[in-house]
Amino acid sequence: MKLMPRSLLGGINALGYEPLRKAIASYVGVSRGVRCDPEQVVITSGAQQGIELIAKLLLDPNDRVAIEEPGYSPARRVFEFAGARMTFIPTDSSGINIASVGIDHSPHRLVYVTPSSQWPLGMTMTLARRLELLQWTRRHKAWILEDDYNGEYRYRGRPLPALHTLDEYGRVIYMGTFSKVLFPALRLGYLIVPSQHSGAFENAHWLADQHSSLAEQMVLADFIEEGHFARHIRRMRTLYAARQDAMYSAIHRYLSDYVDFVRRETGQHTVLTPKSEAANNQLIATAKHVKIEYHTVSMYAANAQSRGIILGFAAFTERQIQMAVRRWAEALQ
Amino acid sequence: MKLMPRSLLGGINALGYEPLRKAIASYVGVSRGVRCDPEQVVITSGAQQGIELIAKLLLDPNDRVAIEEPGYSPARRVFEFAGARMTFIPTDSSGINIASVGIDHSPHRLVYVTPSSQWPLGMTMTLARRLELLQWTRRHKAWILEDDYNGEYRYRGRPLPALHTLDEYGRVIYMGTFSKVLFPALRLGYLIVPSQHSGAFENAHWLADQHSSLAEQMVLADFIEEGHFARHIRRMRTLYAARQDAMYSAIHRYLSDYVDFVRRETGQHTVLTPKSEAANNQLIATAKHVKIEYHTVSMYAANAQSRGIILGFAAFTERQIQMAVRRWAEALQ
Repeated sequence: MKLMPRSLLGGINALGYEPLRKAIASYVGVSRGVRCDPEQVVITSGAQQGIELIAKLLLDPNDRVAIEEPGYSPARRVFEFAGARMTFIPTDSSGINIASVGIDHSPHRLVYVTPSSQWPLGMTMTLARRLELLQWTRRHKAWILEDDYNGEYRYRGRPLPALHTLDEYGRVIYMGTFSKVLFPALRLGYLIVPSQHSGAFENAHWLADQHSSLAEQMVLADFIEEGHFARHIRRMRTLYAARQDAMYSAIHRYLSDYVDFVRRETGQHTVLTPKSEAANNQLIATAKHVKIEYHTVSMYAANAQSRGIILGFAAFTERQIQMAVRRWAEALQ
Repeated sequence: MKLMPRSLLGGINALGYEPLRKAIASYVGVSRGVRCDPEQVVITSGAQQGIELIAKLLLDPNDRVAIEEPGYSPARRVFEFAGARMTFIPTDSSGINIASVGIDHSPHRLVYVTPSSQWPLGMTMTLARRLELLQWTRRHKAWILEDDYNGEYRYRGRPLPALHTLDEYGRVIYMGTFSKVLFPALRLGYLIVPSQHSGAFENAHWLADQHSSLAEQMVLADFIEEGHFARHIRRMRTLYAARQDAMYSAIHRYLSDYVDFVRRETGQHTVLTPKSEAANNQLIATAKHVKIEYHTVSMYAANAQSRGIILGFAAFTERQIQMAVRRWAEALQ
C-alpha cells in the first residue's frame, strides 16, 4: 500500500476505491458466476449500509416488501424504519415458498432473500424455487435483494447459480460482505447494481457518509490482489467444515433425545429444533449455566412462537465444541 | 494500540469506541467549553453521517428546516432527500439573521447553522445573534444542529460560547468532524446529543452501518490520548494563519481592483466578492487558464445569483499562494 496517497486528501468516489471495485467484480465472477463490470460495484460500509441504501433508493412509505419467515431481522428493521409494509413468506426445506402468497396479492416493490444459505435456518434455495421467485417478482415488477452473506462457506454440494445470474431482466441486486468472511468489525460489503442506477447509488452513498473507510478499502484491495483473501477462504473453509462436523457429531451423540437438526451444506452456525416446548425451556435454562451463547430463531421471526436455538461454531475448536455440548447434555440430566 | 483485540470480533457499540468517546468529551470541554458526558457522544462516519442521522431521527416528511443562505448545501440535500421543506435565512456580517423570518412563520422543526465560521462566507455569529436564534428556536420548539466543522482553526479573536453552551433547554445538537482537521478521507465525526436520546441514535446508527470504522476509531483515540492531535492542531493553526495572511496580502496587492474581501478570523478558505458581473466573469474565465481551483458561492446558495469565489489556501505554501494570485492577476490584464 502506498502511504498517504493523494486520494486520501479528497475527491474520492462515493462508489468506492477503484482497485477494490475491480477486485470484487473479478472475484464474484470467478467464485459465484456473477458477471458484472467494476462500474456496477458499490462498496458499502458493511451489508447493513447496502440494505439501507436499497431502502432509501427503492422504497416509498407504504411500499410492500417481502422477507423470509424466519428471516434476517436487521434487514426487516431497516425496511420498516423506511415505512414499508412487510409480508412474511414461509420457508421450507427448499427455501422461500413464494407460491404461498396468493396470486392476487397487492404488488410488492422488493423481496429480500438469502438463497445460498437461508438466514437463520441454513437451507439452500432450490433451482425450481429460484426460477419461481424470479417469475413472481417479474409479475410484481419488484426488485430482489439477493443477500449472499455467506456464499464463501459451502462445505458440501455444488453451489446453484445466483439469482443475479439467472435473472434476465436486471431486477436482482446482489449483495456480499467481508464482515462475515474476515472479521465482524470490518464494515465493508458491496452491492452489484444495474449500470444505469449506479449514479443514484453514488449520490445516496455520498449523502449518507461520503464514502466507506478508504484506509480499510485500500488494505482490503491489496489483501485480495495479493492472494491472501483466496488463501484465507480456502483455509477457513477447511477449518469450519471440520468444526461443523464436530458440532453435528456432538449434537447427534449428546442431544439427539432433545432436538432435531438438519445437516446443512453451508454456514457458520447450526440450528437445533427442540422436540418439545419442555425440551426447549430446559435447553435454554441450562445453556446459561454452562455458559453457552446462543440466539433463538424467534429473534429472527415475525411469529414469536418459532422454536429453534442458533449456535455459532466458527469461533471454537473442535475440542471446545465437543466439550461444550457434552457439558450442556450433562446439565440437562 | 492492541493488535486485533476481542472488540474487533463483534459486540461493538454503535455509538462508538468507548475510549474515543471519552477523549472527545474531554476535548470539546477543554477546547470549546461544550460540557457533556461520554454517553452523549455519538461517533459518526464523518459529519455527513451526523447530518443523515439527525434527518432520520428528527424529521418527518414536510417538516420545515431552516438553513443559512448561502449555506452548506450537502446538509440541505440530506434534509430535502428526507422530504423537508427548506427555509433559506439571510446572513449578514453578524451571521444568520433569524429576525428576518416573520414571527408568524409556520413552525420549524430544525435549524442548521455554522456559528463559529459560517459556511461558506466565514463570519462568526455574534453573541446577540446566538441568543436571538436560541429564543426563536424555543418559540418554534425546534432543534438546532450546530455544525462546528472548523472550530479548530481560529487565528484571531476570542471564540464565543457555543450555542450548545448557551442553550438552557437541551435543544442544541453539537457536531464536530475530524475530516477537516486531519484529512478528508478520514470519515470520522461526532454529535453531542441529549442523554435521553442517545438510545435512538444508537439504534439509527446500527441500522445505517452498525458502527463507524473501528480500526480508524482506535487509531484516532490513541492519536488524541498521546497528545499528537493537540500538537497537530497547534502546528496547523500557525501554518494556516500564515497561509491565510499570504492569501490576503496577495489579494490585496494583485486583485483589489476586481474584488472585495473581508478578513476573517477563521477558516481554511477565502471568499472573493467580484466588484461587478464583468469582473466575476473575467475572474472565472482566467482561473481556468492559470489552473486555479475554486468553488463558487452560488454552489452553496439557493439564490443562483449570489456572487463570490471560494479559494482554499490550507493546502498550499505561502509562496505558491502568492505566485498563483499574481499569475491570475496577470492573466486578467
